[in-house]
Amino acid sequence: MSCDFLALAAPGVRGLHPYQPGKPIEELERELGIRDIVKLASNENPLGAGPLAREAASRALAAGLQWYPDGNGFTLKQKIAARHGLEMDRITLGNGSNDVLELLARAFLTPEHESVFSAHAFAVYPIVTQAIGARAVVTPALDWGHDLEAMAAAITPATRLVFIANPNNPTGTWLGADALERFVAGVPEQVIVVVDEAYTEYLEGGESAADWVGRYPNLVVTRTFSKAYGLAGLRVGYALSHPKVADLLNRVRQPFNVNSVALAAAAAALDDREHIARSVALNRDGMAWLEGEFRRLGLAWIPSKGNFISVDTDRPAGPLFEALLREGVIVRPVGGYGMPNHLRVTIGLPEENRRFIRALEKVLGS
Amino acid sequence: MSCDFLALAAPGVRGLHPYQPGKPIEELERELGIRDIVKLASNENPLGAGPLAREAASRALAAGLQWYPDGNGFTLKQKIAARHGLEMDRITLGNGSNDVLELLARAFLTPEHESVFSAHAFAVYPIVTQAIGARAVVTPALDWGHDLEAMAAAITPATRLVFIANPNNPTGTWLGADALERFVAGVPEQVIVVVDEAYTEYLEGGESAADWVGRYPNLVVTRTFSKAYGLAGLRVGYALSHPKVADLLNRVRQPFNVNSVALAAAAAALDDREHIARSVALNRDGMAWLEGEFRRLGLAWIPSKGNFISVDTDRPAGPLFEALLREGVIVRPVGGYGMPNHLRVTIGLPEENRRFIRALEKVLGS
Repeated sequence: MSCDFLALAAPGVRGLHPYQPGKPIEELERELGIRDIVKLASNENPLGAGPLAREAASRALAAGLQWYPDGNGFTLKQKIAARHGLEMDRITLGNGSNDVLELLARAFLTPEHESVFSAHAFAVYPIVTQAIGARAVVTPALDWGHDLEAMAAAITPATRLVFIANPNNPTGTWLGADALERFVAGVPEQVIVVVDEAYTEYLEGGESAADWVGRYPNLVVTRTFSKAYGLAGLRVGYALSHPKVADLLNRVRQPFNVNSVALAAAAAALDDREHIARSVALNRDGMAWLEGEFRRLGLAWIPSKGNFISVDTDRPAGPLFEALLREGVIVRPVGGYGMPNHLRVTIGLPEENRRFIRALEKVLGS
Repeated sequence: MSCDFLALAAPGVRGLHPYQPGKPIEELERELGIRDIVKLASNENPLGAGPLAREAASRALAAGLQWYPDGNGFTLKQKIAARHGLEMDRITLGNGSNDVLELLARAFLTPEHESVFSAHAFAVYPIVTQAIGARAVVTPALDWGHDLEAMAAAITPATRLVFIANPNNPTGTWLGADALERFVAGVPEQVIVVVDEAYTEYLEGGESAADWVGRYPNLVVTRTFSKAYGLAGLRVGYALSHPKVADLLNRVRQPFNVNSVALAAAAAALDDREHIARSVALNRDGMAWLEGEFRRLGLAWIPSKGNFISVDTDRPAGPLFEALLREGVIVRPVGGYGMPNHLRVTIGLPEENRRFIRALEKVLGS
């Protein structure tokens, strides 16, 4: 053997391409030697974590880092259960919602099974499917969003999971409650429908599939503290499901998958409704301003319900992304999502949005 | 279907029993309504994290929790590489070393493959094997430790992974460098040998299989910041391996598996040699004191190289564990490790050790 470890790897792993994160600020600093960088690449909350979460995180540090976290996440689960009016045994905590999406794949997929998701949907669905060696069935998009009829038609006896991001990342498209609940109700009961609500706090109507978890045993709703709650650095998300599904996910879950600081900060963040309201308002205003600027520049965009917007640059966006980096502005190219002409930009602080537009105008003109 | 999700689960998951963590202090408080509890159940560092790690954690909080962690862990990897004199592309970071142990199983095991480990070895090896649906081959122990001849003989063409904990948890047994390196050198090159060095900082000779990683492409060494470094609450560990093995592990790894506070604290902790020295000295003294007390009480124990010791209570230890809980002392029953008469106790602060011995004497006498 000449170190041919690839041949020894599990079949799914051999073909696996890892997730490409947004470029970290420090990495760009190292590479280009520039400072004063604006990062609008990873849909982070530009206001940061709220004061209650930050205080709780500090208290958790002071309480001692040497103790293993509570592997059952009692306090956080209690708060989540109260928030949703659901029992604690319906909750699975994750090291970010990425973790619970992966737990779902590991619990229910095998190389004999399929998952169904849409074109332009979140990149983690194909990755967790491929890691198992299961088959990914990708349905065409409808106006950049989910085509629920096509998704229903793609379900076969081999289907175990259907992933729906609502709102979807990176397109920002959104399915109304009626259409989505009709879809869930029509899916065969041995197929688990995962509704990924990472951006749900930005929906101002308050509709959520979490309200139906008690009605459909095969419905799983995932949430994250990485977006509106501003806790991406701490890694915490959760799934709501039937208790028997939660039991399976918790078997696969690493016993201490969520760290102590994250448990404490997330529990406190749930109480900070004011911070969420402030974050949502900032997002709404920034989104409106950016849409106005895109209009002025003659650029089309996909209307978005998230904290980001994908703009059609009407040319290959890769070189624009690179040119923006040289201006100190990090956005996200989405060629890997089948959107080679789009750039996804997170709604930032007003000054960050202005920096982005000034840089975009400059690189479009050059 | 009457919600028979178990039948839908992947075969390995159906038979999976999750890891049983040490009882958290708050849980015992809730259950028994008592205070002033001593926890010596999870091999945590009684001195806590060192000052450099705590300061770095505070700085990471202040820098903003809203940013995703650096998915490549550049700064921490740079420090680890320097510490071991190895290239950065040999490092895989994990959400605790539990995470890298699981990545190894997911990268290399399938239901057609086997892992080999010893009786009384760390509970995560059977769990990660079972989660895949692979076959666990458990070799008998030799004086509570690894029988390397039996392990070598257990390797078949289906073997992909061999797990060796050195020192081993929960027995504290230890293999010298010569015997272990001879074993590694003799293992077929398509079998990956994982040497789990979670407790290696407590070995005062400084011998480590990390020194041989450049010599044996099929050797993987795992480390953790949860023990001597006192960072169990933050979750960070790592694997050292051939770059091609690291590439596979990093494909399976969740992109942001290690949180920002953990990355910062671990990098700083590596510089805090004084804290490690203090922790090791405290451990040595506490171990010697406990051995003396066991001798006085006429109890046998397994000589340990870790920060814990397993004492033979000469009777079923479960009721003793329960009785100790009522005295406010949490230790670890290890019946699940095939050691029904032993209790594993972490070396604590002098006062904690005294509390344990006083309580043990009381419950043994009753």
